[in-house]
Formats: sequence, C-alpha cells, structure tokens
Amino acid sequence: MSASYPENLRQEVECYLEGMRFSEEALTAGLEEAMRYSLLAGGKRIRPVLALATARAVGLEQHVVMPLAGAIELIHTYSLIHDDLPAMDDDELRRGQPTCHVKFGEDVAILAGDGLYAEAFRHLLTHQRSAPARVLAAAAELAAATGVNGMVGGQYADVSPRTPPGPAALRRLHELKTGRLISASVICVLLLGAISDEREIVPFRRFAAELGVLFQIVDDILDVTGTDDALGKPRGSDERHGKRTYVSEFGIKRARELAGDSHRMALDALAEAAGESAAAHPAGPTRQPGRLEGIVEHERGTAPASVLPASRGAPRATGELRQIADFIYTRTS
Amino acid sequence: MSASYPENLRQEVECYLEGMRFSEEALTAGLEEAMRYSLLAGGKRIRPVLALATARAVGLEQHVVMPLAGAIELIHTYSLIHDDLPAMDDDELRRGQPTCHVKFGEDVAILAGDGLYAEAFRHLLTHQRSAPARVLAAAAELAAATGVNGMVGGQYADVSPRTPPGPAALRRLHELKTGRLISASVICVLLLGAISDEREIVPFRRFAAELGVLFQIVDDILDVTGTDDALGKPRGSDERHGKRTYVSEFGIKRARELAGDSHRMALDALAEAAGESAAAHPAGPTRQPGRLEGIVEHERGTAPASVLPASRGAPRATGELRQIADFIYTRTS
Repeated sequence: MSASYPENLRQEVECYLEGMRFSEEALTAGLEEAMRYSLLAGGKRIRPVLALATARAVGLEQHVVMPLAGAIELIHTYSLIHDDLPAMDDDELRRGQPTCHVKFGEDVAILAGDGLYAEAFRHLLTHQRSAPARVLAAAAELAAATGVNGMVGGQYADVSPRTPPGPAALRRLHELKTGRLISASVICVLLLGAISDEREIVPFRRFAAELGVLFQIVDDILDVTGTDDALGKPRGSDERHGKRTYVSEFGIKRARELAGDSHRMALDALAEAAGESAAAHPAGPTRQPGRLEGIVEHERGTAPASVLPASRGAPRATGELRQIADFIYTRTS
Repeated sequence: MSASYPENLRQEVECYLEGMRFSEEALTAGLEEAMRYSLLAGGKRIRPVLALATARAVGLEQHVVMPLAGAIELIHTYSLIHDDLPAMDDDELRRGQPTCHVKFGEDVAILAGDGLYAEAFRHLLTHQRSAPARVLAAAAELAAATGVNGMVGGQYADVSPRTPPGPAALRRLHELKTGRLISASVICVLLLGAISDEREIVPFRRFAAELGVLFQIVDDILDVTGTDDALGKPRGSDERHGKRTYVSEFGIKRARELAGDSHRMALDALAEAAGESAAAHPAGPTRQPGRLEGIVEHERGTAPASVLPASRGAPRATGELRQIADFIYTRTS
C-alpha cells in the first residue's frame, strides 16, 4: 500500500495559512501573534488537505475551496489550544513546542482560541466565492460539526466524569470530538459543490465518518507506541490523564485490528464514491463492511474486472483521498 | 425623559431563549445545562432587544429577525462566561449568582462558552429565513464584530499589559470589546433587511456606535456608584482588577458629562436615521455632535417644525430605539 501523502496539497495549505492576517490593529497585535504561533506550528494539515482532495474528487477546482480549507484549520488550531489549557488536558508541549498558554499565558490562550474560531467564520463567510446558498449550507455544517453536537460536545464528554464507561460511549465521544470536524472537511466541500443527491453523498459521508474513527484509533495507538519525538509530547499522556481510549478499552492488539477494519471500510466507501453511485445501482446488493476486498484489490490493479460495479461514466478522482486514508492508517503499522 | 424599556421585546427574547435546545445527546446534557444556566440568568437583553427595535425601525417584522437576536444573546453570554474565568477577570458572581465556572468547573465553563458561540452561528445560519446572500452578510458582520477586530480583540486589549495608557486606547478598547457587538445588533438587521444604501446606513451605524460608547461609560460609572445588589456583584470590581475605565481615566464627574454627550449624539444620529436621510439632503450641512437639541426636542413634541429637516416620507419608527438609548443613559443618572 502506498502511504505517500499529498504533500503538494499540504504545502499549498501551509502557504495559504501563512498569508492569513486577522487585524491591522496595534492593540491586538499580541493576540494575533499568539494565534499565528499556534496556527503555524506545522502538522500534516489533514483536514484542509482532505477538503482539497474532496474538491478534486467532485470536480471542483481545488483553489476554489481554499477559504473553507483555511477556516477548517483555524478551527482545528483553536480546538488544540483550548484542549491544552490547564483546566482541560494541561499539556505543556504540542508538536515539540510550548503550548499556547505556556508561551503567552492562559488568558491570551483562551482568547487566541476564541479569536481563531471567530476568524474562521469571518474568513469563510467573507472569502468563499460560491453561490451564497452553498456557502451558507457549508458554514452551517461547520458550525454544527463544531458545536454541542460536534467537537465541543465531544470534548465535554471527554473531560466529564458523567460520561459512562464502555465502547458505545467511547465511539460516540470520538465521533463528536474528532469525527465531526474530519467529516465536515469532506461534507462542506460537497455542499459547496452543490452535490445534494443523497445517493451521491452517502458514500462520501461514510468514508469521512470512517476516516474519523480510523484517525482516532491510530492516535490512541500512537500515544502508547510512538516516540516522544514523533508525538511532539511525552508518550502515554492519555493514560496519565485517565483518558478513555481505544487502547485502554480494547487493548493494543484489538485496537490494531479495529484500525485495520476501519481502514478497509473507509476504502470500501471510497471505492463506492469513486465509481459506483447508488443511483446507478438502485436495486444492487447492500455492501457489508469488510466484504469488499475485491474492489479494493482492483484499485491496486489486481482484481478481475468482473467484480467491479458498472461505472457511472467518468470515475471520481479519489486518488488523493485514498492517499490520505492510507497515510492515516500506516502511521500505526 | 422617558426611561421606560421595551419590556415586551425583552419578554419575547426571554421566551425565545428559553425555548432553545442544543442537543438531544445524553453525553452532552451536562454541557447544555451549563450553557442554559448562564444563558437564562436574566438581564435586560439589550442586544437582542436592540435588534428587534431596529427591525421595526427599518420596516421588518420583528419576529423575522428573532434567530439573529437569539444568536447575538448566545454570543454575549459566551463572552461573559469567558470574561469571568479565573485566568481573566476571575469573577465569582454574575447577576447575583455563581458564575459558570464556580458552578460547573473551569473546564465546563470554557466549553460552555465555546459551545454557545458555535451554536450561535449554527442557529443563525440554519434558522434565519432571509435570502441567503443577506444571511451571509449578517453572519459575516457578526463574525467580524466578535473576532480579533471586535469583541475578542477588545477583551485581549483589556487584559494585556501591552495596551498603552490614555483615552485613545481606552476608547478603542471598548469600541472593540463592547461596541462592535452592540453595533452589530443594529447593523446585522440592516443587512438582513437589504438596506445597502450607505447614506441610509450611516446614521444607524453612528447611533449604534455611540450607543456602545454610552453603554460602556455608564457601566464604568455604575461599577463605582451602584449597589452590590443592583450590580449583581461586589461594587468596585473594575478598580480591584486594575481595569482602565472611563472613571479611572476621567474621574466620575467628567465621566458623567461624557455619558451625557454620548447620549445626545446617539439621539442625534437616531433623529437623522428616523426622519432625514442623507439621500434626501445630499448637500445639507454636516451635523455636529451636540448641536441638535432642536430636533431632539421636536421628537418630544416641543420644537418648532421649522428646525426639522424635510421628511423622507414615512418616518422610521425609531421609538423603541430611543427608549433603549434613554434606558441605558438613565441607569447612571
């Protein structure tokens, strides 16, 4: 399996983020400094890259969705800053650098997070050049994905002693905390592209949701198996914080198996999004997770054509999405 | 001067806010509880009432802008929760009740603020039934008013030791921290109403900006002269926090004079918004602050008609806006 990452997209995102300024105001220069410190601390930029890769898959020019992609990374950065706060995870290192509150103080860090979230919406609502109704739909999805039924609600469930034990709550917690924003990175692009046919959306949605699960399982595994250097923070921080993780819940061996399952299901959904719409096969058999090795193999050029569904015509260019899924998965193997 | 407040509008806002729910999710019930605890703690609801009053002034049905009004109050509540945090103003009482972090813990309070801000955008973008381009413009204004060049930037300037002394920085700080959201409560309604003629917008914008200044001066005066009961927190908290205020900068007597000036200028702008558009008098004399007692008196039914500018036709129904301005002013006198 190729685990090459669409590095060119990451670089474009990086340039775009570096060019972002939030104010000319002298009074708030220190706030902007803190926001940019965290924003430009590196990373794989998985969410915005995912948005750009989705744009290609649905036939949009990638640069068109860059304001959305940038906004999503601002939001992701805000969530990291607030999650790191002393009252939350109390982390002092992030990507090998002092966290925002360590560097600038807790008050400034809270406001840097607040500011990044506001500027994300300002940026998206001001700079995204699509039909107003489409921008509105994408922005509403982004707000929902980061609200009580999304990222913030998931973070609450993560820190709350009221969250029940067990795998159901664990999975739901992470769907909200991590999954919704990762999914939104795909869904918002579909909304901007005015792809409103549920039958076209469903496989993309399934891909995005599964990618979120995969991402979290791998993150939990890496927290146990990674090196401090690779993690950018001391290994085992989840355990020290008493976090519920896929490893604490299932053990490392089963967690790896779950990651494999999740990866397969993501590729399955992607294959469906790529070449076969439910619309083209309204009466076709429902696919079961894990039963689609044939199609996946075919994408690698080994499966016989007979197992392939009829194509809808021009297949979707999902190569970059595939690269992202593979990259996330192979971080753990 | 009448200082009656448009209580009927406040009650409608109160009912609307009480009806808001953010999630059916059991995992996040505790977060919703904290959000609603702060949201429903009472208050005059000046910002949403201002939005409803502006709707009447520009000929919109008031209920039409209720989603916007609700979103603005969610944002105001979020700002109070974050401002009260130990790392910020460290306030333990708000409207006579324990602040959010005292009641629910600091982590939950941070997330309750974050959640309210996200839900504000979700609510506005999902429920505001105006043409998409108008909703987009209003939401963009709201994001800008609460970002680095607005509320969050102003709060940063308020807590930052880098903010220079002197009245210029003081005024700018409060324009950002308090003024922009109060202004947005007016401006966003104009945007929803598709009032895009700058000559019509300017006097409303001037009214809104001046109202923000007035509000802050009065707030600073009340912190010194009010009773603990009326304030809902111990008197003198600004001084204990070493805050720059209009009272610390100018003394109480001069601050009262400034409030009077500001109130007059607000009414002046409102009179212009009400009956005389710049469009109707493109070559008319520019009005100077404090020189318009005649028009103000006329609104009270005492000025001779000769000092009145020619009407644009049906005058704007600005009575409720006037009530709000008077109410804010008379809190201090």
